[in-house]
Amino acid sequence: MDAMLVLPARSDLKPAAQTDADAFARLSGLVSKDMAEVNELIISRMNSSVPMIPAVASHLIKSGGKRLRPVITLAAARLCGYEGTNHLKLAAAVEFIHTATLLHDDVVDASVLRRGQDSANVVWGNQASVLVGDFLFSRSFNLMVEIGDIKTLDILSTASSIIAEGEVMQLTTNTDIEASGNTYLEIVKAKTAALFAAASRSGGVVAKCSRNQELALETFGENFGIAFQLTDDALDYNGQQFELGKTLGDDFREGKITLPVILAYEKGNNEERAFWRRVIEDVEQNENDFAQAISLLKKHDTLEETLCRAREFGDTARIALRKLPKNAYRDALDDVIDFCIERAY
Amino acid sequence: MDAMLVLPARSDLKPAAQTDADAFARLSGLVSKDMAEVNELIISRMNSSVPMIPAVASHLIKSGGKRLRPVITLAAARLCGYEGTNHLKLAAAVEFIHTATLLHDDVVDASVLRRGQDSANVVWGNQASVLVGDFLFSRSFNLMVEIGDIKTLDILSTASSIIAEGEVMQLTTNTDIEASGNTYLEIVKAKTAALFAAASRSGGVVAKCSRNQELALETFGENFGIAFQLTDDALDYNGQQFELGKTLGDDFREGKITLPVILAYEKGNNEERAFWRRVIEDVEQNENDFAQAISLLKKHDTLEETLCRAREFGDTARIALRKLPKNAYRDALDDVIDFCIERAY
Repeated sequence: MDAMLVLPARSDLKPAAQTDADAFARLSGLVSKDMAEVNELIISRMNSSVPMIPAVASHLIKSGGKRLRPVITLAAARLCGYEGTNHLKLAAAVEFIHTATLLHDDVVDASVLRRGQDSANVVWGNQASVLVGDFLFSRSFNLMVEIGDIKTLDILSTASSIIAEGEVMQLTTNTDIEASGNTYLEIVKAKTAALFAAASRSGGVVAKCSRNQELALETFGENFGIAFQLTDDALDYNGQQFELGKTLGDDFREGKITLPVILAYEKGNNEERAFWRRVIEDVEQNENDFAQAISLLKKHDTLEETLCRAREFGDTARIALRKLPKNAYRDALDDVIDFCIERAY
Repeated sequence: MDAMLVLPARSDLKPAAQTDADAFARLSGLVSKDMAEVNELIISRMNSSVPMIPAVASHLIKSGGKRLRPVITLAAARLCGYEGTNHLKLAAAVEFIHTATLLHDDVVDASVLRRGQDSANVVWGNQASVLVGDFLFSRSFNLMVEIGDIKTLDILSTASSIIAEGEVMQLTTNTDIEASGNTYLEIVKAKTAALFAAASRSGGVVAKCSRNQELALETFGENFGIAFQLTDDALDYNGQQFELGKTLGDDFREGKITLPVILAYEKGNNEERAFWRRVIEDVEQNENDFAQAISLLKKHDTLEETLCRAREFGDTARIALRKLPKNAYRDALDDVIDFCIERAY
């Protein structure tokens, strides 16, 4: 078992009172000029003489994702004092990889909704989603080639392999509700956190940061990515709609096995386990099942347990940040860790 | 319209008598030691701690494809006097890109057979084919990163974008039997020939060939790739099983719009056009339709016309080869051009 997955002791590095809901807006604000240029790059580089490509790509890219990953890349580069322009192409490449994986994910999960609208596979078909995903993935490498730095190519191509491995791992365990929490964390680490880690680390690399800073940025990104995903898992069941991200109950309706469910299954009696197998493994759901699911998660306190784990990974991310120069970018990233977790309360 | 697609005048650069069926075996023989190492690389690099990945990948990779593209990469490098080892990783990367596109193609086309056996999407499902394709694609970039040459990364990432564009172009025209021959050639150029061109050119680039040689290798690869595909199109209807490649009538049964069909539709009367629309556009086929299709292709001589065009592209490929050093590799590539076309007779 990877050392990272041994849960660190809960430390109160930062009391909750210091967090605030505007942390993401503040981080975005710090890199807003860069981000405007990244958005222009994204629009121009997803273009093609084949009209279906920008149509499918822009459906997703313009659908109001929060651009969290490219923002991290930009902030990491600026944090390390970067004053060039390569971080812009790098951030666009990171967003293209993310968008490509979303397009392929929706095919794999047979999703019908993404960010509150019909997913691309519903509008244009699975074929278009597969191929436009391939196109964006190739374009992300075109952008990195233009930067001309082999190290960023290494970081992001390695992350891409790991993401695909994580997806396949999920595919082979996604009907197995008895999967352990540790297996689930392995999947999250590969499927979600690898891109956060690469987005963060490669931002430092274009800024020519030191080796230690590079590794600190990677540790920050990876642990922040896990914390982000676990919080997202809890939010699916937390009983109130929220601003950032998906709609309440999406994971449940798709029969996704997430940490709150795994923990509730572990702690459940035979009757409860039969319930989880029916609604999650077999995705046979009745009208009242979502309410029943929430009540079982509350009974065993697994939303709180999931968020507690998220906070622990968040703390590890925060400790890593301390190895980096203290400036406005570092402070904003630090605040965003809290924000991403505390939004679940 | 791209200049390349203006058909060159038919020149008898090489009389058919000089061709022979062993040309591919001879080319393979010249690079067999290299290819053995490439095969080892392929096996080791498609490995993963997630067991489904090597299972799916090896299903296709071990299924007896002829490895034409990596053989071209190896031969191009050797042709230019290369004595290093980077061409091995490059050839493996080229084969991974090819395999990834086949896996995704089978999902897009909803194919059930590939190289005479159940296609991966039938055995493991579309999801596995999409994700393992992504994995192999990422691994191909990992291999190129290890070579550390930004120019080969440029060539192959650009080719990958073009391949995806060609696939989407085909997706948007693939139920339109009135697509012109030129539109079809654009698709072939992007979908098939771009990888042949990149495989050939990048082989020269690792050998540090001159700019002119690099472009000659690209022209060779592109035109050879088109000739290869057009011959393949004709072979689907040529009335005899053959050794290399697919089974007779595969394209027909999948309703694929290929050049012989486009030309027969153009020349057909109303009744014939209704036939083609039914069997190809609507894929509503009866027992005798394949025989009827062949008889219409013969009536309008469109198999011969397709092969004639293939020969013309083959000639352009041959002229490009003459700009390269004359040696055993060049001679073998030259012979393979004929072989790939003459196998249809």
